[in-house]
Amino acid sequence: MGDPAGIGPEVTIRALARLRRRGVILIGSREVLEREQERQGVDVLAGTTVIDPFGRLGRYPAGKIGKRCGSAARAYLEHGAGFLRRGEIGALVTAPVSKAALRLAGFRWPGQTEFLARRLGARRYAMLAWTPAYRAVLVTTHLPLARVARHITPEAVAEKAVLLDRFLRREGFNNPRIAVMALNPHGDEFSCGEEDRIRRGVRLSRRQGVDASGPWPADTVAGRGGFDGFVAMYHDQAMVRAKLARGGVNVTLGLGTVRTAPLHGVAFDIAGRGRASAASMTAAVRLAGRLATRPS
Amino acid sequence: MGDPAGIGPEVTIRALARLRRRGVILIGSREVLEREQERQGVDVLAGTTVIDPFGRLGRYPAGKIGKRCGSAARAYLEHGAGFLRRGEIGALVTAPVSKAALRLAGFRWPGQTEFLARRLGARRYAMLAWTPAYRAVLVTTHLPLARVARHITPEAVAEKAVLLDRFLRREGFNNPRIAVMALNPHGDEFSCGEEDRIRRGVRLSRRQGVDASGPWPADTVAGRGGFDGFVAMYHDQAMVRAKLARGGVNVTLGLGTVRTAPLHGVAFDIAGRGRASAASMTAAVRLAGRLATRPS
Repeated sequence: MGDPAGIGPEVTIRALARLRRRGVILIGSREVLEREQERQGVDVLAGTTVIDPFGRLGRYPAGKIGKRCGSAARAYLEHGAGFLRRGEIGALVTAPVSKAALRLAGFRWPGQTEFLARRLGARRYAMLAWTPAYRAVLVTTHLPLARVARHITPEAVAEKAVLLDRFLRREGFNNPRIAVMALNPHGDEFSCGEEDRIRRGVRLSRRQGVDASGPWPADTVAGRGGFDGFVAMYHDQAMVRAKLARGGVNVTLGLGTVRTAPLHGVAFDIAGRGRASAASMTAAVRLAGRLATRPS
Repeated sequence: MGDPAGIGPEVTIRALARLRRRGVILIGSREVLEREQERQGVDVLAGTTVIDPFGRLGRYPAGKIGKRCGSAARAYLEHGAGFLRRGEIGALVTAPVSKAALRLAGFRWPGQTEFLARRLGARRYAMLAWTPAYRAVLVTTHLPLARVARHITPEAVAEKAVLLDRFLRREGFNNPRIAVMALNPHGDEFSCGEEDRIRRGVRLSRRQGVDASGPWPADTVAGRGGFDGFVAMYHDQAMVRAKLARGGVNVTLGLGTVRTAPLHGVAFDIAGRGRASAASMTAAVRLAGRLATRPS
C-alpha cells in the first residue's frame, strides 16, 4: 500500500478494482483501504486477503511527510519482503513511499529497491523502466548528474546488459536485441573516454551471449526501430521517455524473484483528491502477475 | 542543400515537392538537385531560383566524408549567411552538413549555428528543439556530459528562458508558460548546488517578464500539461524527447532573423538510397515560412 498519506492507497484500490484479484494479498491499513474503496464506490476487499501489520493509524493529513505514516509504510514493505524472501508469494508490487517519511521512521536505506536487494541477498541488481513500447535498464540511478561519468565502467555496463537480456528472454523475447546508449551528446564526438568504456562493456556482455550493440547516441537511437531493450547510462536518459507513456512500471532485475512498482512517486500534491491515475499501478500488478514465480 | 554526400539534397527536393515554393531560393549544386528530382520523379526546379555558388562538383561517393563536398557545403552556407545578413531573405533553412567534411574544407567553427551567430553579430543565441507538441531550448549543447554541471549558471538559464519566451510570443503564444528543467534526477534530492543556481536563473528571467517556473524534475515535467515551452539543461535532456516526434526542427534563437534546420544529421548510413524521411525538412521549411521576417 505504500505511504498512507500519498496516492498509494488510492491507486492500489483503483487498480485492483479493474483486475482479477485471485491470489492477491493486500498489505496495508485495513481502515485506510476500506475508506478508499468506499470513496471510489467499489468493493475490492471482499474476498481479498488483507494483512495489516502496523494496525491502527489514527488521523493523519494527506499529502504530508509524517513519521507515523513512514513507520506504517516501512512495516508494509518489511512484511512484503519477508513473504518474498520465504517464497510465499510469487511477486511483490510496492506502492509509492516517501523517502523523507521513511527516514523519520528510522529506515536507513536509499530506497525500497536497495532494501529489497539486501533482504533477498542480491549482489547484482538493476532498475528497469518498463512501458509497453520501451524497456530501459539504468546503469546509474540516484546520483548527481555531475558524478555519473565516473560510475560508467565496462563491468557496470555489461552487468546491466546481461540482467536486461535475461529479463527480456523471460518476458518472451527470443534473442533480444539490446541497444546500449552513449553517455555524451552524439556519442564519441564529445567523449572523455566514457564511450570507450561503454564499448568495452558491450563487448563483455556479448561474450555472455547478449546481442548488444552501441554506444548509440541516446537521442537518435530513441526513435530507431529494431531494438527490444535499451541500456541507459543515467536516470533521466531513460525516464524522460518512459514517463511520457502512461502505465510505466519500475521493475527490479536480479532479485531472483519478481518485484514491480508504479513508475511514479507518492504525488503528495494530489494525494487525497481522488484524481490520481492508476494506469501505472495497474500495469505494475499486471506485469507482476505475468512474470510471477510459482510460490512454494 | 548541405553536404552533397548526405541526405540533404534528397530531403530538400522531397520537402519542396510537397510545399508551395513561391519565394523559395535554393542554394546548392544544380547538377545534384536535378539528378535528385529526376530520381524522385518530381519537378521542383522549374520556376524555382537556384543559386550554385560552388559550381561543378564532379563525382563523389554518397555517404562518405569528403573534402570537396565539405567545401561545397561551406560555400552554400556562406552564401546563405550573406543573404541573411544583408536582409535579402526572410529566413534561412540549412540542410545537414558533416562537421568532419567541413573541417577538411578549412571551416573552423564548431557548427553551422556558431558560424551564423558570428556572421550575424549575435552575442546571445540558443538552440531550440521544436516539434508541434514540444519546444525546448538548450542551456548547454555540445559538451561532454561530465562538464555540463559547471556551465549551469543563473545567467545562462535566464538568458535561454528569455530567448524562448520571445520566440513563443512571436509564434503566437500569449504569456507563454515556461518550465525550467532540473539538472539532477528528482531535482533537489541529488543537487550539488546546481538546482539553486537554476532557481536563481528562474528568478532572473521572471524579472524580465518571463512566466518561468522550476527547476522541475525533467522526467515528471515531461508528461505534465500546462507548459508552452521548456528550458533543458543539456542536449539529450531535450533531444531524446524531441527526436521521438517525426518532423522535429532545430531553430536558432537570438539571431534577429530566422534560421531553421531539420533536427537530424547527414545520415551517411542511408545517403543515396532514396529512403530518407523529409518530415523534418518539410517542417523546417514550413516553420521558417511562418516565422520569416520581411526581406528588404
